[in-house]
Amino acid sequence: MADQSAPQDNPAKAWSGRFSEPVSDLVKRYTASVFFDKRMAAQDIRGSLAHARMLARQGIIGATDLADIERGMAQIIAEIERGEFAWNLDDEDVHLNIEKRLTALVGDAGKRLHTGRSRNDQVATDIRLWLRDAIDTILGLIREFQLAVLELAEHHADTPLPGFTHLQVAQPVTFGHHLMAYFEMTRRDAERFADCRKRVNRLPLGAAALAGTTFPIDREFVAAELGFDEVCFNSLDAVSDRDFAIEFCAASSLLMTHLSRLSEELILWMSPRVGFIDLADRFCTGSSIMPQKKNPDVPELVRGKTGRVNGSLIALLTLMKGQPLAYNKDNQEDKEPLFDTADTVIDTLRIYADMMGSRTDADGTRVFNVRVKREAMRAALRQGYATATDLADYLVKKGLPFRDAHEAVALAVRGAEKRGIDLPEFTLDELKAEMAEVPRAVPLLEADVAHVLTVEGSLAARQHIGGTAPTQVRAAIARARAALA
Amino acid sequence: MADQSAPQDNPAKAWSGRFSEPVSDLVKRYTASVFFDKRMAAQDIRGSLAHARMLARQGIIGATDLADIERGMAQIIAEIERGEFAWNLDDEDVHLNIEKRLTALVGDAGKRLHTGRSRNDQVATDIRLWLRDAIDTILGLIREFQLAVLELAEHHADTPLPGFTHLQVAQPVTFGHHLMAYFEMTRRDAERFADCRKRVNRLPLGAAALAGTTFPIDREFVAAELGFDEVCFNSLDAVSDRDFAIEFCAASSLLMTHLSRLSEELILWMSPRVGFIDLADRFCTGSSIMPQKKNPDVPELVRGKTGRVNGSLIALLTLMKGQPLAYNKDNQEDKEPLFDTADTVIDTLRIYADMMGSRTDADGTRVFNVRVKREAMRAALRQGYATATDLADYLVKKGLPFRDAHEAVALAVRGAEKRGIDLPEFTLDELKAEMAEVPRAVPLLEADVAHVLTVEGSLAARQHIGGTAPTQVRAAIARARAALA
Amino acid sequence: MADQSAPQDNPAKAWSGRFSEPVSDLVKRYTASVFFDKRMAAQDIRGSLAHARMLARQGIIGATDLADIERGMAQIIAEIERGEFAWNLDDEDVHLNIEKRLTALVGDAGKRLHTGRSRNDQVATDIRLWLRDAIDTILGLIREFQLAVLELAEHHADTPLPGFTHLQVAQPVTFGHHLMAYFEMTRRDAERFADCRKRVNRLPLGAAALAGTTFPIDREFVAAELGFDEVCFNSLDAVSDRDFAIEFCAASSLLMTHLSRLSEELILWMSPRVGFIDLADRFCTGSSIMPQKKNPDVPELVRGKTGRVNGSLIALLTLMKGQPLAYNKDNQEDKEPLFDTADTVIDTLRIYADMMGSRTDADGTRVFNVRVKREAMRAALRQGYATATDLADYLVKKGLPFRDAHEAVALAVRGAEKRGIDLPEFTLDELKAEMAEVPRAVPLLEADVAHVLTVEGSLAARQHIGGTAPTQVRAAIARARAALA
Amino acid sequence: MADQSAPQDNPAKAWSGRFSEPVSDLVKRYTASVFFDKRMAAQDIRGSLAHARMLARQGIIGATDLADIERGMAQIIAEIERGEFAWNLDDEDVHLNIEKRLTALVGDAGKRLHTGRSRNDQVATDIRLWLRDAIDTILGLIREFQLAVLELAEHHADTPLPGFTHLQVAQPVTFGHHLMAYFEMTRRDAERFADCRKRVNRLPLGAAALAGTTFPIDREFVAAELGFDEVCFNSLDAVSDRDFAIEFCAASSLLMTHLSRLSEELILWMSPRVGFIDLADRFCTGSSIMPQKKNPDVPELVRGKTGRVNGSLIALLTLMKGQPLAYNKDNQEDKEPLFDTADTVIDTLRIYADMMGSRTDADGTRVFNVRVKREAMRAALRQGYATATDLADYLVKKGLPFRDAHEAVALAVRGAEKRGIDLPEFTLDELKAEMAEVPRAVPLLEADVAHVLTVEGSLAARQHIGGTAPTQVRAAIARARAALA
Repeated sequence: MADQSAPQDNPAKAWSGRFSEPVSDLVKRYTASVFFDKRMAAQDIRGSLAHARMLARQGIIGATDLADIERGMAQIIAEIERGEFAWNLDDEDVHLNIEKRLTALVGDAGKRLHTGRSRNDQVATDIRLWLRDAIDTILGLIREFQLAVLELAEHHADTPLPGFTHLQVAQPVTFGHHLMAYFEMTRRDAERFADCRKRVNRLPLGAAALAGTTFPIDREFVAAELGFDEVCFNSLDAVSDRDFAIEFCAASSLLMTHLSRLSEELILWMSPRVGFIDLADRFCTGSSIMPQKKNPDVPELVRGKTGRVNGSLIALLTLMKGQPLAYNKDNQEDKEPLFDTADTVIDTLRIYADMMGSRTDADGTRVFNVRVKREAMRAALRQGYATATDLADYLVKKGLPFRDAHEAVALAVRGAEKRGIDLPEFTLDELKAEMAEVPRAVPLLEADVAHVLTVEGSLAARQHIGGTAPTQVRAAIARARAALA
Repeated sequence: MADQSAPQDNPAKAWSGRFSEPVSDLVKRYTASVFFDKRMAAQDIRGSLAHARMLARQGIIGATDLADIERGMAQIIAEIERGEFAWNLDDEDVHLNIEKRLTALVGDAGKRLHTGRSRNDQVATDIRLWLRDAIDTILGLIREFQLAVLELAEHHADTPLPGFTHLQVAQPVTFGHHLMAYFEMTRRDAERFADCRKRVNRLPLGAAALAGTTFPIDREFVAAELGFDEVCFNSLDAVSDRDFAIEFCAASSLLMTHLSRLSEELILWMSPRVGFIDLADRFCTGSSIMPQKKNPDVPELVRGKTGRVNGSLIALLTLMKGQPLAYNKDNQEDKEPLFDTADTVIDTLRIYADMMGSRTDADGTRVFNVRVKREAMRAALRQGYATATDLADYLVKKGLPFRDAHEAVALAVRGAEKRGIDLPEFTLDELKAEMAEVPRAVPLLEADVAHVLTVEGSLAARQHIGGTAPTQVRAAIARARAALA
Repeated sequence: MADQSAPQDNPAKAWSGRFSEPVSDLVKRYTASVFFDKRMAAQDIRGSLAHARMLARQGIIGATDLADIERGMAQIIAEIERGEFAWNLDDEDVHLNIEKRLTALVGDAGKRLHTGRSRNDQVATDIRLWLRDAIDTILGLIREFQLAVLELAEHHADTPLPGFTHLQVAQPVTFGHHLMAYFEMTRRDAERFADCRKRVNRLPLGAAALAGTTFPIDREFVAAELGFDEVCFNSLDAVSDRDFAIEFCAASSLLMTHLSRLSEELILWMSPRVGFIDLADRFCTGSSIMPQKKNPDVPELVRGKTGRVNGSLIALLTLMKGQPLAYNKDNQEDKEPLFDTADTVIDTLRIYADMMGSRTDADGTRVFNVRVKREAMRAALRQGYATATDLADYLVKKGLPFRDAHEAVALAVRGAEKRGIDLPEFTLDELKAEMAEVPRAVPLLEADVAHVLTVEGSLAARQHIGGTAPTQVRAAIARARAALA
Repeated sequence: MADQSAPQDNPAKAWSGRFSEPVSDLVKRYTASVFFDKRMAAQDIRGSLAHARMLARQGIIGATDLADIERGMAQIIAEIERGEFAWNLDDEDVHLNIEKRLTALVGDAGKRLHTGRSRNDQVATDIRLWLRDAIDTILGLIREFQLAVLELAEHHADTPLPGFTHLQVAQPVTFGHHLMAYFEMTRRDAERFADCRKRVNRLPLGAAALAGTTFPIDREFVAAELGFDEVCFNSLDAVSDRDFAIEFCAASSLLMTHLSRLSEELILWMSPRVGFIDLADRFCTGSSIMPQKKNPDVPELVRGKTGRVNGSLIALLTLMKGQPLAYNKDNQEDKEPLFDTADTVIDTLRIYADMMGSRTDADGTRVFNVRVKREAMRAALRQGYATATDLADYLVKKGLPFRDAHEAVALAVRGAEKRGIDLPEFTLDELKAEMAEVPRAVPLLEADVAHVLTVEGSLAARQHIGGTAPTQVRAAIARARAALA
């Protein structure tokens, strides 16, 4: 996009006085942006109308001009909505395409619209309006995703699942507790998008090409018209700043990283050897060659799409590195990564909110798209001596130094391994026999140890804010619901 | 770092019961972190003391234990400060090194310190404490940088400089106005670091290995002791979350991008053909072969170091992509990129605050490290018809449609080019003659056009918030000073 | 793309036996690839024909089947070329769209085409064919770019220009020598693309879904038919390998990095303060507001587009990190970054080959699109004491230790600076006087020093392979021409 | 590193004539490189000796000078090896540190060493020598890794394992076949490093600061002395090129991506629910809290370290983007990412070659560090109807159209699911009964179908180059061994 501050009849000729040869078709295509920036048409018109109202209010254009512009823009909106607007590569970008059509529709008033602005501040305004809309959509979709997660988590507030570290069985948690980790991650995501929105929501219009304008404009009025929180305080910064795009992509990379982690888990959990869940068919595909296949395509794609969002972040950071002030043509490259990132995030959230969700069946039962196989989860808990730590804690609470407790439990685990059983399957006497080599431990073992060794006992004991005890999980869900209300 | 929730005499043997062979030296070195995580020693001790106080308060350990721990830690701090602490690779990480020394110093109390926590939540707490300190340092340094920029900008609030777009002369701005763009950029940086700090400042301790603990801990007490705003609400998330590191690196990438832009400009401005500024000698180096050289090493390195910060951001995003919950050993790789980024940002800001600064000379005059060559800046303004837009605006204000105005000015520019002069050098009659082909323009030209064509007239006319008029620049500086006060 | 090894009437239903609900529109859109993979249609058909010929040769399908398939494919090619082919989202991807149309056209033979293959190895084959074509195009365009550079370099084999380090004047070079640096960079680029091509040019077909097929296929025959150098030796690797895409993007990032460096220089050189060159109008745009502007849009965009190529590289690396074998749906995300990178590189090279090129004017003179302003380059040489090193070398050759020589020259430079002149403007006696403080230097100065201080003398003295002496530059050009012949 | 072409007594003062103030400690630290570039000391000395021999051969320095330099360097090497060399921050970098010490040891000859070169070409030479050594080490380690993989693959050439796509059971493969996929990946890695080595192995020395030198040097002689394949043909390119570092990092990113995939698999396979393998204890750690834990730390760290290598690649690409020629200080930032990448790759390969390897036990049996649990792998094959495709192929070969075959098999799978059995457990009559709804299929089923349904039958049938039939796997191993011999 070249510097531009005024309308013209033939934009390709607007600066042709000093130019001795026309631009080639390849150059035209290489430098044009209308292919991708036309999706900001609604924002471009919204911004132009606010600008026009300000110009009229300040007496820079007449009331008739404003009326003409408003009438013309109404028609252009209708044409775009009906798919009848003729986008033209020769007019380079969304701004010139619309302005040219406006001038064709309403004449001189159209030529006066561009007074006191430039394409440099105009495009910066358009992107910010567009991105603000995108962020609002994303915030709404994060909330939808979270509500689905909360419902599923509540349903499984006390469904036991092995908690893994290093993909090895560590300690029992509940599936609801596990899911609430993703609530927390997306809570931070929502905070970050909201923080980013504050910095998006500042008005560059009025910076003109780079230095401001000689017309008596009223930037605060335009800001208020368009719902901006404040104006950009420096004209050079206003036209060259693309921080908001980078910050948005960074926030998006984090969100996608979270969803890629959840996807990894869904894929793992659905793998037949693990077998913890089944996903509703409509998020999967089969194979025309292998009749037995049901593939979790959606989570796989989400995991893969994390790459393109990280890539866009790097594209934008590379773009801005080392650019001198103010506007350089390089900046035109900001839009495609930004659009692609917003599209990816919005589609992914929409599909994920659905995938984590549920519906009421014909017979009134609640059916979740993530179907949990409780038996498999419980079986897995028996494959890793998940309550060994509880046994050690039990001995510590009875006064044994942790080192001795750890050793005693190790002996018990070794014995259980030999016999192919899980710790809770020991009788009290058997357990004492296993720990005989740590004499101080033996008398500490009493009948109450049985409860400690059960998954339910282990879960219930983690009774503090953030712990996996079902009452804590329910409290966390209630707290989350209150925050979303 | 392996899962770990309790002290022991010989940590390398802590889990050796089930292990049949020792770890090789290469594996030990490959998996150890003490080389780089020992720089969190102060934070590790701060966290341990808060944890011990909570344990005592809750009756989980005795008052004597607490006293022993406090005494032991005081000695360890002293040993570290004196450089006498013997870091040991066999003890893997900063946590075990300190705990082992504590146990050596105070016996059983040391063995009780680890009750109710794990290295998983301990390390997460340490990093957050460390990073919070780093952010506070960065916020202070941004302020220092900004104060230097404000003083320099004020000194040059009306020093004319060509504003560039596409590195071509566009319109006059003042050097002070140009500098204020960097104030705005770093204002957003400060906001972002402050936003990031909110999410850093949450306490993971209490999550233990991943599921919480069976001991009756009081997480809010620990949070208050350590100045955390809140506790992490989910234990699985608490030990696996590294968002804060990624968000910090993203904010750092943006800051470095801004400073790389300023660096690019300083380098350009100091290049002899441009010659706008000279940098104080101590930020430059010469050449032992070429006696005439004075190289702007510092800005060049800043530009280059943007790469390493972007690289760290990608390192962390790659690290977390697709990891299942909860803690995985991969996470140990979070520290080096984070430390390197914080170091780079802190050093760069410190040096940049100095480089943009000034000192009072022996004779009481203020000497800036960025010395402006006003004549060169003014000469440059004459090399690009910088006030051509003002002339067009002048005609538009007198009623000429912009298209005609543009054409008339193009004629004048062409005439000036032919004669090798700048626009203000025309007499009124000459100017009228040049525009003869646009008859409607000619009568509009009056004596007052002379002022419009001057750099000073052009600057003064951009009289609105964010514009380059010197009064606006001064107002922006005042507003900025108030915000920093 | 789901696993797939055979044709079917209704692909959306191919695996529906086990599936209880249809895929939603959003899921369909999220998982489909036909939007972007249809551009591999020609390669898909080429691969299918080779596969069909092999099946017939091996007796797996009949001769009539082959004839039917060949006839059907001929018609499909024609339909695609005429823009009449109806791409259908319900058929997911390019493969099923074509296969379904084939079956509609030729019946059973179409259903037999997919015997012994799967979409997993089919898509891998298509991409490799597509990428091989893209690489060949790129190699041709690099050559075109190099030929343009060589002609321009020859024209300026002895045009003096200041060589810069740190953007400070260092020593004289010729503009031709400077340009030849870009010949060397792109020579390495061509080597890298050729190396990459070797690894692209291996045939995955025959790997089927992941394990090979039970049909008696002849992979070497197919490889020979399609011009592949060898077959992929492991079926699991064949369907999951995307190295070639990553390696291609890495080679592209380097090429774009080189062109971004050249772009940075063109932009700098065209900035009015530097003023070394002018670019042909058709690679620039003007401004509708500022009649004096001529902006180097094309180099700016090239610099900016480096970002998107780096971004695609990161997208692909992120995509593959940590994926278990063999094919996962994530891999579908490989195409868009790959296509975008190839498009960007091809367009950029094409436009750059033109921009560095020339044409013969009406009057028979050769006109270059990069117009050199020799006087500005020579003036710049006088702004940095570019021959100071030559003077020091002169003294060293006469026996003075370098340290003393450096000091003596520093004195001369200081004297010249004071008088505002360049070193060659000194008389011999004046030069001796300036160096008086280094007495051993003075008698070494003789009349022949005058030549040493001239730009021409300096250039001519760098007389070794790789040096800037015009004869060396011409030799380098001749060597380059021979290599391209 | 500043431009530098000659020795001096006090390097910090070498260019101080024109400088009015000393560099601050922070600037000194910020700009110095000796902290990290001292590891190139051996290469620096090797390069200096070759340069000195050339200078003597060309008569630029005397024979005694050369003897002195050789003697001095021998002593410096000894001092460095004994750890007695005093590295000094004031001397900026490895080059000046060594040169200064040389001059202290041998006087004037030391001052003559730098004749005809500059630090710009010197450092470029050092890095290339260093990197060439690193690549040779890496090539050797890839071979070691491959030999270990081959032995393990041979041991398991017919051990059945479910081949997965989408982490769902697809078709049987052998574990040996699966492992050979990693042989193929690293074969490409080795090719890429060898290709990169060609471009590393070119001599920049002789380019001097940027333009070549006025001394009659012989670059081919130096190239031959140092084992370089050719000289860099353009002096500006020679000092500013960092392609080799970027290409090396790109090759490293791909290698790490492959090892991250293998790591992901090892971690998955070792997870108790999957349970396919056990890793030798010395590559794992336990937990001091959870006595049952054995964590695969090494593969997890490898997966994590992929991030830092990708990060370094981006750091270097960002560094070079948009830099004008020739040397800029930014380039000093090339070394740390390069060193870190080489270290990471070398350590990772070394540890991985060990981890995939084996040893002979006391009783003469071969013990592999990756211990395969055959029963678990076979059990997994029964959890996914892995031979369903074989059954369909069987019917197709008997003439049934694939679509019908697919449907018939789907019916059989559904029947087997209902009865909770695997396909081979059907009798022939039962199978016919299941397929009754596809009448054409029934008569085609004969006794030989039993073999088709077995895992062994399925494996053996994939009998073509690249297929998983054990004979093919053994052939692939033999081919691989021959290539490595």
